[in-house]
Amino acid sequence: MPNTFGHSFRITTFGESHGGGVGVVVDGCPPGIEISEEEIQLELDRRRPGQSEIVTPRNEEDRCEILSGTFEGKTLGTPISVLVRNKDARPEAYSEMAHKYRPSHADFTYESKYGLRNWQGGGRASARETIGRVAAGAIANKVMRERFSEKFDIVAHVSVVQDIIGDADLTALSRSDVESNIVRCGDPAAAEIMIERIKEARSNGNSLGGIVECVIRGLPPGLGDPVFDKLEADLAKAMMSLPATKGFEIGSGFSGVCMTGKEHNDAFYMDGDRVRTKTNRSGGVQGGISNGEHVVFRVAFKPTATIMTEQETVNSSGEETILEGRGRHDPCVLPRAVPIVEAMAALVMCDHAIRQRGQCGDV
Amino acid sequence: MPNTFGHSFRITTFGESHGGGVGVVVDGCPPGIEISEEEIQLELDRRRPGQSEIVTPRNEEDRCEILSGTFEGKTLGTPISVLVRNKDARPEAYSEMAHKYRPSHADFTYESKYGLRNWQGGGRASARETIGRVAAGAIANKVMRERFSEKFDIVAHVSVVQDIIGDADLTALSRSDVESNIVRCGDPAAAEIMIERIKEARSNGNSLGGIVECVIRGLPPGLGDPVFDKLEADLAKAMMSLPATKGFEIGSGFSGVCMTGKEHNDAFYMDGDRVRTKTNRSGGVQGGISNGEHVVFRVAFKPTATIMTEQETVNSSGEETILEGRGRHDPCVLPRAVPIVEAMAALVMCDHAIRQRGQCGDV
Amino acid sequence: MPNTFGHSFRITTFGESHGGGVGVVVDGCPPGIEISEEEIQLELDRRRPGQSEIVTPRNEEDRCEILSGTFEGKTLGTPISVLVRNKDARPEAYSEMAHKYRPSHADFTYESKYGLRNWQGGGRASARETIGRVAAGAIANKVMRERFSEKFDIVAHVSVVQDIIGDADLTALSRSDVESNIVRCGDPAAAEIMIERIKEARSNGNSLGGIVECVIRGLPPGLGDPVFDKLEADLAKAMMSLPATKGFEIGSGFSGVCMTGKEHNDAFYMDGDRVRTKTNRSGGVQGGISNGEHVVFRVAFKPTATIMTEQETVNSSGEETILEGRGRHDPCVLPRAVPIVEAMAALVMCDHAIRQRGQCGDV
Amino acid sequence: MPNTFGHSFRITTFGESHGGGVGVVVDGCPPGIEISEEEIQLELDRRRPGQSEIVTPRNEEDRCEILSGTFEGKTLGTPISVLVRNKDARPEAYSEMAHKYRPSHADFTYESKYGLRNWQGGGRASARETIGRVAAGAIANKVMRERFSEKFDIVAHVSVVQDIIGDADLTALSRSDVESNIVRCGDPAAAEIMIERIKEARSNGNSLGGIVECVIRGLPPGLGDPVFDKLEADLAKAMMSLPATKGFEIGSGFSGVCMTGKEHNDAFYMDGDRVRTKTNRSGGVQGGISNGEHVVFRVAFKPTATIMTEQETVNSSGEETILEGRGRHDPCVLPRAVPIVEAMAALVMCDHAIRQRGQCGDV
Repeated sequence: MPNTFGHSFRITTFGESHGGGVGVVVDGCPPGIEISEEEIQLELDRRRPGQSEIVTPRNEEDRCEILSGTFEGKTLGTPISVLVRNKDARPEAYSEMAHKYRPSHADFTYESKYGLRNWQGGGRASARETIGRVAAGAIANKVMRERFSEKFDIVAHVSVVQDIIGDADLTALSRSDVESNIVRCGDPAAAEIMIERIKEARSNGNSLGGIVECVIRGLPPGLGDPVFDKLEADLAKAMMSLPATKGFEIGSGFSGVCMTGKEHNDAFYMDGDRVRTKTNRSGGVQGGISNGEHVVFRVAFKPTATIMTEQETVNSSGEETILEGRGRHDPCVLPRAVPIVEAMAALVMCDHAIRQRGQCGDV
Repeated sequence: MPNTFGHSFRITTFGESHGGGVGVVVDGCPPGIEISEEEIQLELDRRRPGQSEIVTPRNEEDRCEILSGTFEGKTLGTPISVLVRNKDARPEAYSEMAHKYRPSHADFTYESKYGLRNWQGGGRASARETIGRVAAGAIANKVMRERFSEKFDIVAHVSVVQDIIGDADLTALSRSDVESNIVRCGDPAAAEIMIERIKEARSNGNSLGGIVECVIRGLPPGLGDPVFDKLEADLAKAMMSLPATKGFEIGSGFSGVCMTGKEHNDAFYMDGDRVRTKTNRSGGVQGGISNGEHVVFRVAFKPTATIMTEQETVNSSGEETILEGRGRHDPCVLPRAVPIVEAMAALVMCDHAIRQRGQCGDV
Repeated sequence: MPNTFGHSFRITTFGESHGGGVGVVVDGCPPGIEISEEEIQLELDRRRPGQSEIVTPRNEEDRCEILSGTFEGKTLGTPISVLVRNKDARPEAYSEMAHKYRPSHADFTYESKYGLRNWQGGGRASARETIGRVAAGAIANKVMRERFSEKFDIVAHVSVVQDIIGDADLTALSRSDVESNIVRCGDPAAAEIMIERIKEARSNGNSLGGIVECVIRGLPPGLGDPVFDKLEADLAKAMMSLPATKGFEIGSGFSGVCMTGKEHNDAFYMDGDRVRTKTNRSGGVQGGISNGEHVVFRVAFKPTATIMTEQETVNSSGEETILEGRGRHDPCVLPRAVPIVEAMAALVMCDHAIRQRGQCGDV
Repeated sequence: MPNTFGHSFRITTFGESHGGGVGVVVDGCPPGIEISEEEIQLELDRRRPGQSEIVTPRNEEDRCEILSGTFEGKTLGTPISVLVRNKDARPEAYSEMAHKYRPSHADFTYESKYGLRNWQGGGRASARETIGRVAAGAIANKVMRERFSEKFDIVAHVSVVQDIIGDADLTALSRSDVESNIVRCGDPAAAEIMIERIKEARSNGNSLGGIVECVIRGLPPGLGDPVFDKLEADLAKAMMSLPATKGFEIGSGFSGVCMTGKEHNDAFYMDGDRVRTKTNRSGGVQGGISNGEHVVFRVAFKPTATIMTEQETVNSSGEETILEGRGRHDPCVLPRAVPIVEAMAALVMCDHAIRQRGQCGDV
């Protein structure tokens, strides 16, 4: 269903950018996991606006409240509901959008679909919708570490902004490396250039896109399902369901098409008792199932659609018109997308770990 | 669930490459649609081995039988089950694989997951599994054209093999264009080179990858759901669930990250009564919902993992060993992937059309 | 999934009786339906404690808040989230239950399942969980009347309390008839006796069960699915998912087993243009699909498990012990069950109406 | 979806009574379970027509073939597809029904829903559809015994035919007890009378209904989910999805409404280390979750709708007419319903066992 994700560990998000609030219901969570509002808040704070000089200056505090599903600090096995109230709404900032369709936004398509829309902000297409995903991802991460793999770890970073490419060693990259600069690039030198480029775009009323690269480490072999619910298929869906994404690739990805089979195949070898591959062009997944190597994938984000410049558009009466650039928005969504990509990856892994334990016994 | 795809128009595939047969159950199909085994067979024949000199010479006739769900040539609204018997099995050709893991295949991961596997061929990881998808796609296509949009049309072609790039006009590209050469490339000049390259790879016991590009035309605006079931998310999942895929992109895709927002945004204009965009970097989808423009996406396929050469690997006893190259396989899966990509695209569209009609009334 | 109900019109409830609150997320609702907190509150008020002298005196105001999914008083097509805060919590009233299992309650089974439980009240087994169902049912009812059938109407009443049988004409029974007495029985004479019997049970620290009978009128033919999702199967699941239910029957139900086929079959006849049946032992459903006659079903509720008397039980340390009767509870849940049964029936019908429109076109 | 049942152990059935065949796809089955066509056939033979003098004399051999999902006699973890070909079709026997609606059958409702129907037999409403359920139930039973509970055991019997009540001790009742008479009643004395009554009904061209009672033994505590997927809710749906069912009750059921809370509550006590209840009015389920006691439920079946007598009806042109009684049918479906009820119960338990292991770890 449109607003539900996952099969056995399942989240349902709700809420528009304007209105009472946004949130999530997490269903199917294992019982007895310690979780607190503080832990969830840590992740939400990485996502929230106003956290640095290169993201939107909107000041949304985004304090979360756990409404249900925990007792004395532990998950009950029942639905965990997390709510974040909407604040700092300035609907008047959106009055122009009540009738004009913002280019490359969802205004026209929502109206085509539903016949009406909440024009105060982006409605469900707002990045605020991802608050619920990030909150749920924090829980999924804990479940993975406490129930399935102590070494489980997800780290994402901004590897590309426009044509600036950051180079990071995904085997070693840590969250503190990523958090050491405001653009969240694992390559400090590239980060400097990215930050300048983003500031420049903002001062020009323009916006930039880029790539988030993500590595999942400590994943046991055997997760993922052979056919439709391949691990990479569910990751692709998870990532392409994020606002502003235009592409997904795993392992060798699009560049792998230039290789021959002899070059591309990952030879197996024994590393003690463990079956390993010498290379990892597969990206940790073969036949849709994890092989125990790092899962590595990349997600392409387009430049933010909201720009501070005049644009040609039409209105809901079918007349051509001009949209003025207004409001407070991100010149580049990538830094704030990092925790969201990590969260979605955690949700996919946790769902598959629970499914695997259900069908086949211990993971 | 692992072997089911879709929400309201839903398919379940079954069958290994060796065993009784492979097939599909299609549930939720609108009643009263004319469909015959011949129509389905046409699509299966585009997918089957042995159809040209650049695909595997295995001779699988792949005759389909409709077991249920139709009466006097029309769909009943009940589950349509289509079966294709397995033939031409040579399990002895696979005896080496009973114990050795083929590199970049699913042998090791299946065994990690399930503790056992059907080593006679690829089991569910075999491309034979896609027979069910293609049969179901043929039905989905008819439903779309007869119930939702007369102009509905999906055309895919091989746009890239290794580093050979075919250039085709996706507005005009027809199926007969694509079928005019055995590599199924919309650019006849590039096709020639691709064919030679594939023959060369085969003669070297090697294999090649590439990109399938696909356009969906005649899709009404309003299909797709805002959050998790965005049209591009469901397409991404559909494509990344195909064997050998490593990447998916829609519209501007990965190359869109180099553009600025001013360059990337698709300005709206009026084309008579119809809201259109001047460019189509969005790829026909905004906020997860179709906008009435062509949906354009690309899928990256890795070089076939089966190659006719010695490879280092390990066996199920945990010993390092050498795998000899044997069997009859495709040096390049791309030509046969074209109808599969089209089928999966049709399934996604049909599911969303039915969902849209259910929730919002007429599409 | 455990906390989600429905396929295309889908609700997810959350919340324990103690904690932040309880609520529901409604997904898949058609857009453009007028709905207000007041309309939902009307139904919640029929369900809430403290509304009459024969139900629990707990004073739960149960004010609902719509957090999302509406704009300017109309549904957006996006998830509608409704929250009711928990109040009047007296966890100390439950301290005895922290370790002792209440007989015929869910304390022992929750602990068997999850290894822990929220012992402050019934957790998810509390009747407060049904608040979300009632709120969602109010929305489903409006969708049915505004989009599918103007004459759509659901009326339930208490037809039996212990051995007191109320007789009502289900063709004519109106909500105001039902609301004319506090036990919500469609037979005013029986109602008087029922009320006295319930008061007597309460004064004895005892409790009573009974039967809620429900009629759905104005349902178009063609709703329901032939096999697993038969209309009666989904109704049965809906009703048996309510706390304290022990039985479900439709049409002739259990008493139909005494009839022969000649007596039981519903002969068809023409009523103008409309195909009708002379009798309605089928209960409005044949082969799982509505035939346009009234859908009539009955639900058996056991006597409330909470009684004000000493009972033998065991504690979580595995010792036999005595549970004192304490707290404030309903001597008979039936009067408050009426709106809940109606709500669940509306949810099933609305889901099937949307599914039918999706698959087969206009309902 | 209409033709799919279960969440983590999931079956999809297909096939009409006339056409290529009927069958099932079982998805989510644990790997490594030994299963053979012979074991499945044993159950199918209990369901098939022509097995005794009190069921329909149609001679359907109903030989099953496993098409996929097993290898060397064991389940692979992939979809298990089982097919039974249709034979002995006499469509001419149904020609009258091409236009006339059989009373209390699904002819009119199918046509209302879909606008057309397979009038050769009952289509999906035929009891042949249950072949797939029985085949899948045989697999579910093995999974339960081999993976979750050695003592797991389901026994159903015909406890009532019309007004003849059979009395059986559900603690001790064995399958061989049930199979010792052709009506499958656990009470041999009552069985004799039932058999005579059924023969009498048949000779009068009439039909009878009754009740199937079922006990599930050896079920671990903790299965079932608290809210919508209560064990009794899923059982109710399973049973009410069977053709000809009109009612379901668990434990004390409808007769429990006459008791007071003091009489009805099941007191807990310690039986060694095990928490037990002194009585079992709960029917083995509390708050939707198994408590380790026997799960006991009853299902009401109406008298067979097909009778050998003239009946008033209408045709598809909207004219009133008379339907002659013809064809070969069961005067009482109960004896053949016994294995079907057992199969559906096994499917529900197996689904919940896998879900429980997935969410909470070992069952």
